[in-house]
Amino acid sequence: MVRIGVVGGGQLARMMIPASINLGFDLAVFAEEEGSPADLAVSQVGNYREADELEAFARTVDVLTFDHEHVPINLLEALVEQGHKVFPPPQALELTHDKIVMRERLAGLGVPQPAWFTVHSRSDWDRAVESLGGSCVAKVPTGGYDGKGVRFVTEWDDISDWISQGPVLLEQRMNFTRELAQLGARSSTGEWATWPLVETRQVEGVCSEVLAPAELGAKESELAKGIALKIAESLEVVGVLAVELFHTDQGIFVNELAMRPHNSGHIFTELSATSQFEQHLRAVAGYPLGSPHFVAKCGAMVNVFSRFDHAAWVVGDGISSRVKVHDYQKAPREGRKAGHVVAVGESQSPLLASARETARKLGDARYDD
Amino acid sequence: MVRIGVVGGGQLARMMIPASINLGFDLAVFAEEEGSPADLAVSQVGNYREADELEAFARTVDVLTFDHEHVPINLLEALVEQGHKVFPPPQALELTHDKIVMRERLAGLGVPQPAWFTVHSRSDWDRAVESLGGSCVAKVPTGGYDGKGVRFVTEWDDISDWISQGPVLLEQRMNFTRELAQLGARSSTGEWATWPLVETRQVEGVCSEVLAPAELGAKESELAKGIALKIAESLEVVGVLAVELFHTDQGIFVNELAMRPHNSGHIFTELSATSQFEQHLRAVAGYPLGSPHFVAKCGAMVNVFSRFDHAAWVVGDGISSRVKVHDYQKAPREGRKAGHVVAVGESQSPLLASARETARKLGDARYDD
Repeated sequence: MVRIGVVGGGQLARMMIPASINLGFDLAVFAEEEGSPADLAVSQVGNYREADELEAFARTVDVLTFDHEHVPINLLEALVEQGHKVFPPPQALELTHDKIVMRERLAGLGVPQPAWFTVHSRSDWDRAVESLGGSCVAKVPTGGYDGKGVRFVTEWDDISDWISQGPVLLEQRMNFTRELAQLGARSSTGEWATWPLVETRQVEGVCSEVLAPAELGAKESELAKGIALKIAESLEVVGVLAVELFHTDQGIFVNELAMRPHNSGHIFTELSATSQFEQHLRAVAGYPLGSPHFVAKCGAMVNVFSRFDHAAWVVGDGISSRVKVHDYQKAPREGRKAGHVVAVGESQSPLLASARETARKLGDARYDD
Repeated sequence: MVRIGVVGGGQLARMMIPASINLGFDLAVFAEEEGSPADLAVSQVGNYREADELEAFARTVDVLTFDHEHVPINLLEALVEQGHKVFPPPQALELTHDKIVMRERLAGLGVPQPAWFTVHSRSDWDRAVESLGGSCVAKVPTGGYDGKGVRFVTEWDDISDWISQGPVLLEQRMNFTRELAQLGARSSTGEWATWPLVETRQVEGVCSEVLAPAELGAKESELAKGIALKIAESLEVVGVLAVELFHTDQGIFVNELAMRPHNSGHIFTELSATSQFEQHLRAVAGYPLGSPHFVAKCGAMVNVFSRFDHAAWVVGDGISSRVKVHDYQKAPREGRKAGHVVAVGESQSPLLASARETARKLGDARYDD
């Protein structure tokens, strides 16, 4: 029996509960506040930025993993020094904490990515813009998520407020045709397994829909899997790795990384024999990985924003009995991810329509027709 | 949001947890002791035979349902009188508490079942045996499960110890070719949905394996579904109903009933778009039912007895990455159900072989080759 500790009590920790029930693992969650989505498995409530609280939690579990990437790396390094198992390990997690570190490390691995510059000053800006052209993407290297901390910029004044806080990552603005995600998992034993590639759709920088599988030429598909494997092995990632990719006329380029279950992988709960939550738990526990093969031909996942309206569901109008629903039991708030729905079957287009209709009924759905 | 209370903390309550997480229902379990399989959702520990404890639990939930059929019917009737929702309702549950009541009610519904007699005395026995022939099945009407309280009998002395405790049900011994189970669910709104028929295999009266779907002629398939619907509607069952059937050269006959998720339906977690646990929660909450269609062509479920050996699993030898495992986290004990494994796909025979091999590795598997 293994006891897995999860730092963070959000929907990702919540969705690890069903997997832990099936696998017979004990799950313990360190949440920031009472009443979190992962409430059922919460064993400690407090501040994960406090070393003593984090250490107290680590002492109650066999292995520590994460619902988010906000735990300070130095605290995790201290836990590893004390002999605790921390997966993914701090040196890998660092890439998801700091986008400049990520670009540097990916460059070192020779992985295709947008051209990029670190901007500390006006003169850095001038050099970067000369190389990247007039329109770029600026990113605060740490703490951003779901489109926060990201701007399309053309002038120095667009980032001068950020520069006063620290360096800014400036990237080439990619003229992409679509966005993709390659997910895989690496066990602490070194075993590696990937799911088929998926297409992700964002609205205002926030993932709104996922379609699977994403069709891609054999050569680029192999490249996507190869990129994920190279990152996983080089950094000794343990757990789920999500590689977000831009697909352009020039090929595929790495946008961002996540080293935990990721919104782009929610669809696997219904579409694959092994969900990303089950795979993550198996990986960090050092168990054999489950088969990631698809059990249906294709599927669509649509996020439900703002609220999850049970009253609308009970009425049932517009909610197909074939669409599977996931309610995160969060308090309603405009724009927050409140749940998601998934439809799997034989034909992409009606599945997407059905999932959208359900999501619209239950809360807000966001998509461009 | 609905809060569902489950009396009993066994593996059936445990497996309702993943469904409640997805659906966004609150689940509360009234367990008999600390450390039950459903531990994560336990909100009260005590004796469900004590009216005040049961009532205290009922007051904390919106609807009461069950992990087992051992709660005294008169206590449930009192809860209904107090205005609590109890699903399935006591008048339906009574058939699963008392096998003589079941035979009487099924006879009233005109449902095909083995010939049967209630035996109070030696003279009853003589009359029954004359009609049923020399070899019969005797059953203690209440409290039996998993083969307990059931005997093949030929002589009065075989049941004289039971008779001193109360009446005994004597049934015709069916010369069946196989055993089947028809599962369905009825919502408190009256909605009804059935899964395809499954074949169950018992060893020494205990379910050891389930194969799905069971092939049966169209006429008898319709009859099986019709029997389940008739029982569900006549008795106003709410929740999952499992109708165990004998298949003989003369047709199908009802063996026993369960009005809760049932071992014969564990396979639906992987094989159907809607698990029996999700369907049970939807039904007792009055939500629309999920689609019970199969997501793969066929599947096999094999119970794991006595223990669930994680050490054997980590080594992995003989455990297919495609077989899904369910560990109930019970203390090891010879012959107890400790978990189950499921394989789904295209071809029954290799799936069964793979599931058996996994079950054998993790604990004891029981089957006749």
